Amino acid sequence: MSKYAIAIHGGAGTILKSLMTPEKEAAYTLALSEAIAAGENILKSGGSALDAVEKAIVSLENNPLFNAGRGAVFTNEGKNELDASIMSGLDLSAGAVAGVKNIKNPISLAKAVMQQSEHVFMAGHGAEEFARKVKAEFMPDDYFFVQMRYDQYLQAKQSDTIQLDHTVDKEKKFGTVGAVALDLSGNTAAGTSTGGMTNKKHGRVGDTPVIGAGTYANNITCAISCTGHGEFFIRSVVAYDISCLMEYKGLSLKEACDVVVMNKLVKIGGEGGLVALDAKGNIELPFNSEGMYRAKKSSNSELFVGIYK
Amino acid sequence: MSKYAIAIHGGAGTILKSLMTPEKEAAYTLALSEAIAAGENILKSGGSALDAVEKAIVSLENNPLFNAGRGAVFTNEGKNELDASIMSGLDLSAGAVAGVKNIKNPISLAKAVMQQSEHVFMAGHGAEEFARKVKAEFMPDDYFFVQMRYDQYLQAKQSDTIQLDHTVDKEKKFGTVGAVALDLSGNTAAGTSTGGMTNKKHGRVGDTPVIGAGTYANNITCAISCTGHGEFFIRSVVAYDISCLMEYKGLSLKEACDVVVMNKLVKIGGEGGLVALDAKGNIELPFNSEGMYRAKKSSNSELFVGIYK
Repeated sequence: MSKYAIAIHGGAGTILKSLMTPEKEAAYTLALSEAIAAGENILKSGGSALDAVEKAIVSLENNPLFNAGRGAVFTNEGKNELDASIMSGLDLSAGAVAGVKNIKNPISLAKAVMQQSEHVFMAGHGAEEFARKVKAEFMPDDYFFVQMRYDQYLQAKQSDTIQLDHTVDKEKKFGTVGAVALDLSGNTAAGTSTGGMTNKKHGRVGDTPVIGAGTYANNITCAISCTGHGEFFIRSVVAYDISCLMEYKGLSLKEACDVVVMNKLVKIGGEGGLVALDAKGNIELPFNSEGMYRAKKSSNSELFVGIYK
Repeated sequence: MSKYAIAIHGGAGTILKSLMTPEKEAAYTLALSEAIAAGENILKSGGSALDAVEKAIVSLENNPLFNAGRGAVFTNEGKNELDASIMSGLDLSAGAVAGVKNIKNPISLAKAVMQQSEHVFMAGHGAEEFARKVKAEFMPDDYFFVQMRYDQYLQAKQSDTIQLDHTVDKEKKFGTVGAVALDLSGNTAAGTSTGGMTNKKHGRVGDTPVIGAGTYANNITCAISCTGHGEFFIRSVVAYDISCLMEYKGLSLKEACDVVVMNKLVKIGGEGGLVALDAKGNIELPFNSEGMYRAKKSSNSELFVGIYK
């Protein structure tokens, strides 16, 4: 009766069909399918939810379509600063990094913080020093350089506004990527990775590396990865709130997601969404924005890929 | 029938009476009383819980007895890196800074992030740039230099172990400072500030700047400020967990504090404590370590100052 399940997101926001070309849509669909496959291959062969989450996110980080790893947005100093976190639902172990530069796969660095340091959360130069110690892969600036993101940065800098990720003109997107998984042993995991906001103030940290806000996993409740306007997600402790509604109030995964994403976040103006699953293999992909790049697959259901509402 | 209340802590850990001199004990008692008075003066005259929390913590930050602001411990690069966060229970607004250097009062910088930026959480150089913009007070390195802390640092560096704050030999202390307050308008607030661990890896971030873990405030439940082994407090989302146990499970402040500090944290080896109050003016000061520097005062109760179990 064991089953596995995986769900991923590639960011939420004002993703309008009218602004999408068939080619672009096909490229996103392919990228999401590939990330699901990367995670599913681990799960199918009895691998851990933690490894599946890492591999799915690495696939999204390596794809310049998404605002994480390669393809991250530029801060107002013209740099890419990356944040990521990961958590195991088995023992509540966790790792997170914030404001790291030139790290190819921040999610793997977060996993190294979890497994190879005595700390949970490391930031900036110290996190980069740790990355050198554990032989994490560094890439030169031009690896991260994506023309579209750089154009957005110059445009945002001119108008001195903060743009949200893939944002082009009327589009507003939160380009975090993330994954949640359940493995055949019944363990859950969650992870999230981002390049933040275009023209964000150097040093701004969103919800992505904040355990409880952007990422949370606990076998007895759920695994959650968020994407959205990070400030609201921090103040609402979104990921752990869903877990508490299940554990303390007895809500189902779906009910808890509805309360938090469609009610509480909407009330304070917190735009975004998340991917969630529980240890029974139920999956939810709620969002209160126009769209969210998302996909899911489990041992007893077909691949689903969605972009719009 | 309006009342006010305030509670503070100056760190938890292995605080042994056998290692304390009467002079040292008197100095700590005076410092805690002064911090309570700084907050109470605000509350008595109808000021906000937020301002009371800030002023009480500023008093503790300015006192070299505590590991926050002046008197912070040294990282293994011989620097003082400071973290702080603050939250208003009225509207769930929040501000946090991590890894800032040379800032006289990190708690006031966290408040400025909350009130004068569009962000909630800022780290490192970017947070320092923001500090210059809002004219936060900077101090030279030697302001933060305290001989006892520096000796601890050299000692820890020699043995390459991480020491916990005031730690001298057998002592193990978590030297975060923090405050929670309830004002005459019925609003709550919480704040926390720390210099981290002696010889900590440069870049390590504890629970202090993590909203939901080290600090949380919500008028409908409680205001919480934590001190302890930060990694466990992050993984347990301690401050928000107490709020959720009250909101979703109907526990009293005391019951929720007991579950989290005496049961859940103990189970995973998370040593430390916290100060907590609710909108009715109930105050709790639970800790699972040998001692915690703590004090409380309300409009209808005398000053209490405690150090040991």
